[in-house]
Amino acid sequence: MTLPQKVRLVDVGPRDGLQNESQPISVADKVRLVDDLTAAGLSHIEVGSFVSPKWVPQMAGSAEVFAGIQQRAGVSYSALTPNLKGLEAALEAGVREVAVFAAASEAFSQRNINCSIAESIERFTPVLEAAQAAGIKVRGYISCVLGCPYEGEVGADQVAGIARDLHAMGCYEVSLGDTIGTGTPGATRKMIEACAVHVPRDRLAGHFHDTYGQALANIYASLLEGVSVFDSSVAGLGGCPYAKGATGNVATEDVLYMLNGLDIETGIDLDLLVDAGARISQVIGRENGSRVARAILAAR
Amino acid sequence: MTLPQKVRLVDVGPRDGLQNESQPISVADKVRLVDDLTAAGLSHIEVGSFVSPKWVPQMAGSAEVFAGIQQRAGVSYSALTPNLKGLEAALEAGVREVAVFAAASEAFSQRNINCSIAESIERFTPVLEAAQAAGIKVRGYISCVLGCPYEGEVGADQVAGIARDLHAMGCYEVSLGDTIGTGTPGATRKMIEACAVHVPRDRLAGHFHDTYGQALANIYASLLEGVSVFDSSVAGLGGCPYAKGATGNVATEDVLYMLNGLDIETGIDLDLLVDAGARISQVIGRENGSRVARAILAAR
Repeated sequence: MTLPQKVRLVDVGPRDGLQNESQPISVADKVRLVDDLTAAGLSHIEVGSFVSPKWVPQMAGSAEVFAGIQQRAGVSYSALTPNLKGLEAALEAGVREVAVFAAASEAFSQRNINCSIAESIERFTPVLEAAQAAGIKVRGYISCVLGCPYEGEVGADQVAGIARDLHAMGCYEVSLGDTIGTGTPGATRKMIEACAVHVPRDRLAGHFHDTYGQALANIYASLLEGVSVFDSSVAGLGGCPYAKGATGNVATEDVLYMLNGLDIETGIDLDLLVDAGARISQVIGRENGSRVARAILAAR
Repeated sequence: MTLPQKVRLVDVGPRDGLQNESQPISVADKVRLVDDLTAAGLSHIEVGSFVSPKWVPQMAGSAEVFAGIQQRAGVSYSALTPNLKGLEAALEAGVREVAVFAAASEAFSQRNINCSIAESIERFTPVLEAAQAAGIKVRGYISCVLGCPYEGEVGADQVAGIARDLHAMGCYEVSLGDTIGTGTPGATRKMIEACAVHVPRDRLAGHFHDTYGQALANIYASLLEGVSVFDSSVAGLGGCPYAKGATGNVATEDVLYMLNGLDIETGIDLDLLVDAGARISQVIGRENGSRVARAILAAR
């Protein structure tokens, strides 16, 4: 199969990456990170989320971050909005794209968002309706598509059914998340094939975590399946592989390096991206999670 | 293309992994590492090398290591022998499989083994002859197959010509080494296709370094090209990605995890392998370089 000529990378670092940090990160530092990613050429950046600060204190300042960033034309700055209240707050903050998130396993859905999968889909209906009324795009996430920390294996058909529902209710794109990073390329391909029965391949995105080092192999497998959108996190923000239950996002630099090698166009400048990752890693005092960044920084 | 049903992993940790360690590692610790790998089910282990201790002091005790290990029937315990003198020492130590190594770039050949590529091939002729006379197998390595630290890009045809020569002179297998880890899946496939013009695919092996995090994607790409032998290093021994010019081998645990996920048979027990890697990492006082091992050890 021929590979896509162009790929869109969605940097989820400012949201998925930083949300689990226990230390406070200033609005100014978050703004700088988003601006750095814009400067590096990302065309889609997940800036924050509008959820209860009780649940995710790190995302409390999302409205201020949106107010502070320099938005470049043609770039999507999105936010997570689990419910109507979140959507309203996002709209008030001037957000033009939002995302809802479901899980592929019942146990994860219950523990992560306190309801069944079916209930979560129902809950999204008014969000989608209000978003459509406001003329803004909605992306759908599905977590645990290649394994669940509580249930183990997750069936490809189960994932495909939820992808179908999210797409049918109006999500312009469905991001398939290997939340615990246990997926391997064969399972990835089967899962995508199952989803592609219901959702066009150019409406599917891959969201891989590198906990078991499999993310790039899974992304290459996804490219072979015609997927052309991937979520990643600059400097691999979002999890330390040493900690229990850690779920590090694949590093944007590592994905970009592979795509460059495959002559796939992204519009992103690797050197500026490495700068962005080096800066935020220093701010949060964490080792840079990108192998590409570490190799490039060591060679500089 | 269908994937191979079986893969042989060659653990090069005791040799390629440990040779650059500046601290002394005792013969007993090396013996224990090889024995641990045997117990984990590896069918091919590169135990050491017979080179001048002036050049590679860490390998000075290879004869003692060979004398100390418990050899299991059906397992190949090999050694690097750059010249006739090395081969003689290896034979004296009872070694039953050796390897010679060429480079795919002239600059690397000159700096690494002090001669041109053509001279290195000539130098191997008496080694191959003597090995054949002694009835032992010879494996051929080619380094820098996807990039050279001095010359940059390396042509696939250049690699293929050397692979052809090594195979023609009697090497039963040619291991294609991405020594600096800069390769990506498309380049990997092209390089293998070029080599496969001259050497049967089941006589080619992939040897990937994970410096830029690309190794597993490249191995998956190689599997799609019909390659069924891969070199790797338990715990990713053989290079720290933080250091300049570091060239870490892909971790055997990470490769095995992917192969297990692909239902490809290897005969290796992942848990025992993780134990082996954890032990040697502790001995040399280095962080375990395998993401799979870190995730499994954190969960235990």
